[in-house]
Amino acid sequence: MATASKDGLPNVVPMTFVKVYDDEHLLIVDNFMEKSKDNLINNPYVAICVWSMEDKQAYQIKGKAAIHTSGQIFDEAVAWVKREMPVLQPKSAVLIEITNIYVCQPGDNLGKEL
Amino acid sequence: MATASKDGLPNVVPMTFVKVYDDEHLLIVDNFMEKSKDNLINNPYVAICVWSMEDKQAYQIKGKAAIHTSGQIFDEAVAWVKREMPVLQPKSAVLIEITNIYVCQPGDNLGKEL
Repeated sequence: MATASKDGLPNVVPMTFVKVYDDEHLLIVDNFMEKSKDNLINNPYVAICVWSMEDKQAYQIKGKAAIHTSGQIFDEAVAWVKREMPVLQPKSAVLIEITNIYVCQPGDNLGKEL
Repeated sequence: MATASKDGLPNVVPMTFVKVYDDEHLLIVDNFMEKSKDNLINNPYVAICVWSMEDKQAYQIKGKAAIHTSGQIFDEAVAWVKREMPVLQPKSAVLIEITNIYVCQPGDNLGKEL
């Protein structure tokens, strides 16, 4: 997941707990975020590069993040992490409103928006 | 490799041709860059997430990019790509001056600068 500071310094880190929340949102759980969260507080735009095992394709998902530290979405995120890795202590749930999806793999569809 | 527009919109895409150029630089070959290059022209800062097979660790490398479309560095990049995948037509060589390297893997060293 890539974020950027307000003055445009990019940051990119691997994310473990990422899932499709509904047709328009991804849910990412913040277990260890530091710089990414600082960036998101000041600049909510994110870019996420994913590899689809099914399609054997890389996609870039762009969107806007909202940070939840209480409420239903946070509770769902905590329950999910606790089921998978009970030792973790989720700090927040980051709900990404998906704005664009692009193919980011060399080939005829490179750069194509889905 | 993550870049950002001047107004802070992040972009992140996978890169195939990446290597250590010397102790202070990475060389990345631009075979297919579109948005990344637009961003770099206006904002040279990059963040690169790599996985080390040797250490079994993820690292984030931060730096500043210079784009070469002719000269020795470009010629070296073209020669490298032509050896590995003759069908490709490198457009430019992106030399990254490394400014910081961080561990970006959960564990005791998370966020540690090397």
